[in-house]
Amino acid sequence: MKIALAQLNYRIGAFDENLQKMLSAVEKARALGADIVCFAELAVCGYPPRDFLEFEDFIRRCEESVRHLAQAARDIAIVVGAPSRNPVPEGKDLYNSAYFLADEKIQHVQHKTLLPTYDVFDEYRYFEPATKHQVVEYKGQRIALTICEDIWNIGNENPLYTICPLDEMQAQKPDFVINISASPFSYQQSDERLHILRSNARRYQIPFFYVNHIGAQTELIFDGGSLFVNPNGRVACEMPFFEENLSVFEWPHPAAKDAVKDKLQERNKLELIKQALILGIRDYFRKLGFQKAILGLSGGLDSALTAYLACEALGHDKVLGLLMPSEFSSEHSITDALQLAKNLGIQTQQIEINSIFSTFRQMLKPWFSDLKFDVTEENLQARIRGILLMAFSNKFGYILLNTTNKSEMAVGYGTLYGDLAGGLSVIGDVYKTEVFELAKHINAEKEIIPQHIIDKPPSAELRPDQKDTDSLPPYALLDAILYRYIEKRQGAAQIVKDGFEPQLVNKVLRMVNLNEFKRHQTAPVLRVSPKAFGMGRRMPIVAAYNLFQQTAPEKG
Amino acid sequence: MKIALAQLNYRIGAFDENLQKMLSAVEKARALGADIVCFAELAVCGYPPRDFLEFEDFIRRCEESVRHLAQAARDIAIVVGAPSRNPVPEGKDLYNSAYFLADEKIQHVQHKTLLPTYDVFDEYRYFEPATKHQVVEYKGQRIALTICEDIWNIGNENPLYTICPLDEMQAQKPDFVINISASPFSYQQSDERLHILRSNARRYQIPFFYVNHIGAQTELIFDGGSLFVNPNGRVACEMPFFEENLSVFEWPHPAAKDAVKDKLQERNKLELIKQALILGIRDYFRKLGFQKAILGLSGGLDSALTAYLACEALGHDKVLGLLMPSEFSSEHSITDALQLAKNLGIQTQQIEINSIFSTFRQMLKPWFSDLKFDVTEENLQARIRGILLMAFSNKFGYILLNTTNKSEMAVGYGTLYGDLAGGLSVIGDVYKTEVFELAKHINAEKEIIPQHIIDKPPSAELRPDQKDTDSLPPYALLDAILYRYIEKRQGAAQIVKDGFEPQLVNKVLRMVNLNEFKRHQTAPVLRVSPKAFGMGRRMPIVAAYNLFQQTAPEKG
Repeated sequence: MKIALAQLNYRIGAFDENLQKMLSAVEKARALGADIVCFAELAVCGYPPRDFLEFEDFIRRCEESVRHLAQAARDIAIVVGAPSRNPVPEGKDLYNSAYFLADEKIQHVQHKTLLPTYDVFDEYRYFEPATKHQVVEYKGQRIALTICEDIWNIGNENPLYTICPLDEMQAQKPDFVINISASPFSYQQSDERLHILRSNARRYQIPFFYVNHIGAQTELIFDGGSLFVNPNGRVACEMPFFEENLSVFEWPHPAAKDAVKDKLQERNKLELIKQALILGIRDYFRKLGFQKAILGLSGGLDSALTAYLACEALGHDKVLGLLMPSEFSSEHSITDALQLAKNLGIQTQQIEINSIFSTFRQMLKPWFSDLKFDVTEENLQARIRGILLMAFSNKFGYILLNTTNKSEMAVGYGTLYGDLAGGLSVIGDVYKTEVFELAKHINAEKEIIPQHIIDKPPSAELRPDQKDTDSLPPYALLDAILYRYIEKRQGAAQIVKDGFEPQLVNKVLRMVNLNEFKRHQTAPVLRVSPKAFGMGRRMPIVAAYNLFQQTAPEKG
Repeated sequence: MKIALAQLNYRIGAFDENLQKMLSAVEKARALGADIVCFAELAVCGYPPRDFLEFEDFIRRCEESVRHLAQAARDIAIVVGAPSRNPVPEGKDLYNSAYFLADEKIQHVQHKTLLPTYDVFDEYRYFEPATKHQVVEYKGQRIALTICEDIWNIGNENPLYTICPLDEMQAQKPDFVINISASPFSYQQSDERLHILRSNARRYQIPFFYVNHIGAQTELIFDGGSLFVNPNGRVACEMPFFEENLSVFEWPHPAAKDAVKDKLQERNKLELIKQALILGIRDYFRKLGFQKAILGLSGGLDSALTAYLACEALGHDKVLGLLMPSEFSSEHSITDALQLAKNLGIQTQQIEINSIFSTFRQMLKPWFSDLKFDVTEENLQARIRGILLMAFSNKFGYILLNTTNKSEMAVGYGTLYGDLAGGLSVIGDVYKTEVFELAKHINAEKEIIPQHIIDKPPSAELRPDQKDTDSLPPYALLDAILYRYIEKRQGAAQIVKDGFEPQLVNKVLRMVNLNEFKRHQTAPVLRVSPKAFGMGRRMPIVAAYNLFQQTAPEKG
């Protein structure tokens, strides 16, 4: 039996486009002699469709796509993910289902059992879990259809769940498992996925065919990396990351049980993050129908990295860098930015903001009179730059890229409607220390980001001789605390136990909490870590929870 | 037996403050001779705590509060909501529980069974549902403890759920039911709540004691309105809306079964919305530690209504109105705004933006040259105003109030970082047609909002002779379509069937979808309707779902 996995890039709600893409893949798979072709979870509508699932018309269109695909299931079977209606009044209205289509008919529908409802996932908001588990027979093979999370509770050891769908199907003696997934990228996800698939294959001693989405959907990036795993847990094939692909695998094949080596592509955390961000930018623009990006080039590292990624995603001729020096800008802020632009081959424009900054200050003089220069004036400069960037964006159809990194986003080191403006936050899930690592990685073979940009101390340049370290601890220290609080969900007491200074921990955690209001109003953040700001981290804005103070008062 | 319901205003994560508040209520209830005092759902930590529930330290503090309360349970029993840990590894880590405390001990813990996971609710993200239902005995009475949603599946008729907790407890013959809730306000919620409680009381022929939160938590507003309902379904008492209260009720009492009239406070949709918004503003400021609000006064109705609400919430001496006329501003924009300010007794300041607008245009001339005046220049004016408002906010500690209404928010009729700026969106869940109604309601006894502001045609005044109707259908028509799409989740085909013009429906729905990116970056919206923008409506930004085009092409 030949099984094709079609790893495709869908657009949410683009029913015709998604359907055409799948029909082409069916043709191709048929031409390659495949018996079955498999598409990913909720492929007909794209993932995640979110509250569109509450619209009757949206579901009707999903069903229409399934019917079209069924008609194409001639001389080949199709496995495809789509929502299906719950026929009884009790429970949620929908199931998240895998359809098995053959002989121009829906032969079988298996619903998803384990519905992730944590981090970026909201599946129980929409779906009822399956209670029945039935293998489907096709050409003499017994196939277990599973959907994403269904295989993530191996032998019921995942504390989140109480059912293991494959254990339920064991009595039916499946010959192999097909898993259709929508498994978003984080820098550790492809390893976890591998671990899950190997463990499953070994447990049941049958092969696994796993097909994932590729492509970005606003903040979520799907990396593909679909897999065919032998019964002994060895990876027979891992499909490429970050690109569409259709591959056909034969089963059974004689070498499978003797395979001793995994066939895996290289995994490098920095390279994965880089590729993910590039895809994230590219799909955000393409799927919204935009081509050109603008960003402010400050001569600093964050904007340099963002500009590089934008060039890789959109082409250097589609990126405009705006230089907007003020009286507080260093000379190197210009020379470094220009050198970067030269290295990248992007266009730049330069607008001095001194005069407009003075005009604003003059206008405000009747009220501000002799009050001292403070964060108001710093923000003013950042907001003038925001206005200029948005004026270009509006007039010429650029999308403004936000260049704030995760460390700044966490502690609110940025100006709302100023440098926090933009349609997409490119590196908002990349800590400053990782920004440095990425820059070095990008420069590994050739200096693309000027070395001086990497070497100089980070500064917002909004007042004389300002350095980030005036307001923040050194980034290595800051990021270590942030990682424990954000990714690890450790409280202050636990972080202090790890050896960090209580007062500093308290200060950092308070900054993170207090700045929830800024994150509420910033652009969607491309997610590359297991815990990104955005839909996966839901915190109250109005809250008084001061993590550490309770156990050891700050002044104590 | 005397039962006290304590309807209190908690602060999320303010464990000490919440605990002190509850301890005072315990004292008061004891002094009034109560046998039991009841606090609301998750009262110890405030509702909704959201992802703070993922922090071990946060749960530890909740447990600490419960222990403190238990110590206070002398000569009085306490019912209180708090998270509790799931002792087995399977399933979610927490339960959403009602604790019954008496004789200085935890006597009983009943977990919540029905976990709302829709609209603004994410409970299955955190909690495992209860599987056991056990009444608690106290002073010879058998008490059924339920938590909010638990009583919203009467006789299993709510299609969302498959269990009816009170049916499960029936065999144990409870004498009465206590329900601890966190039921956020919408203009129809108090009626639905009433219906649910009456139906439950009649079904089981026992009385219901229902205690709700009051107070606003960022976007969610809790209106209180706690209830004591007789076994015959008559309301013996409804506690006040929008204020803290502690009331003691005696049960059994002889008049109960003969009661023929409901004791209800008046319900007026507009008055409820008004009071809710006032509480929403007041608590947002108070709980964040701010006192003063600033807003732009355009002479239009949205800013007039917002200013009025801010005065009611914070006091007229705490509100500053900024007038920022441009060359396109009408004369009445100033005179109307000043008249409003006079009526409200608030301070105003005036800054002309013509010169700064010209300066920006001059700066941009090298790039924009002779390109025509378009939305870029309109946005520029709005953003200049945003900068000025934020400068005042930063310098003097005002929170900027956003004045965008729900109709504008829906179709994206507003400038990101301009008039869409602000820390809190006051009327972002109030359609423009409702804004008119509210204004009339406020003016019922006396002209507070100058009549001319209500009568003149709405305009953004960003270009010569601009009217909202240049870009948008008349608001009565627009709002009728928006209501069907947003509140009713109707697709385009269904809306057309209701008699709306296909092309217009398509245009409006497309505007709503395309402007998701703006709503993603705006302030939290005070929720007063059953479907508000914000946490309760989760839509993809990047999506191609064009609701109508598919069934009847726009050009057809």
